[in-house]
Amino acid sequence: MTETSDFKLHPQLRSDSLRVGKLGLCELRLVNDARFPWCLLIPRVPDLVEMHHLPTAHRLTLFNEIEQVSEYLLGHTPSSKINVAALGNMVPQLHFHVIGRRPDDLSWPNSVWTAGPGQNYTKTAAETLIVGLREQLEIS
Amino acid sequence: MTETSDFKLHPQLRSDSLRVGKLGLCELRLVNDARFPWCLLIPRVPDLVEMHHLPTAHRLTLFNEIEQVSEYLLGHTPSSKINVAALGNMVPQLHFHVIGRRPDDLSWPNSVWTAGPGQNYTKTAAETLIVGLREQLEIS
Repeated sequence: MTETSDFKLHPQLRSDSLRVGKLGLCELRLVNDARFPWCLLIPRVPDLVEMHHLPTAHRLTLFNEIEQVSEYLLGHTPSSKINVAALGNMVPQLHFHVIGRRPDDLSWPNSVWTAGPGQNYTKTAAETLIVGLREQLEIS
Repeated sequence: MTETSDFKLHPQLRSDSLRVGKLGLCELRLVNDARFPWCLLIPRVPDLVEMHHLPTAHRLTLFNEIEQVSEYLLGHTPSSKINVAALGNMVPQLHFHVIGRRPDDLSWPNSVWTAGPGQNYTKTAAETLIVGLREQLEIS
């Protein structure tokens, strides 16, 4: 996708998560919460709030990027189920949660949003996940 | 979409929600919880679990059906924000939650999954919403 200079990552998303890199449409970030392997995909299109505001031309790309991240989480973290959500009640900028879940995780079978406060990664653990994502998704 | 005889709605989704009708790809249902205007879209494709398992040929249709339901909820219920999610930790059959939210609802700004037990609709209130959805989405 052609970069638009009008897109700016919301500061709350920036502070809650760690940079992985750029996919074709989305900024890919890792939520800084070691309890769940939890990615954010943020389409680099300015002023989007709702999922259905994403222009048709970008929709298959978004779906494909969700697929790539989902496959990574299923194949390279101890996850057996993916949760995908676009909520945005707290941070209006359109962002997709893609979360690896498993039956023995802290919140199963409930959503991650019932699990209480997050726990930051150690630097090493975060780097391992970020490097893995970059390699698998061919992000330079 | 051509109906496949192999698709069967999961009994838990059937008992938690009320039938609205069939869109091109998805079965549309209203969650029987008067606290939130909350629809379910269930693609009529057998054996789907994860969002990214939906065949590419159906992805734009799914997006379009999410859009139609979102626009209905924003235009015809007191909702100012849409939450979309495919979780499936409790019911494995792929289903999308499309939920109308507003800053004075019971759970705002948290997700609806932190709001405790649901409250069934009265028959009249459910019928009003179902009839409205059918008319607006041209479901016969």
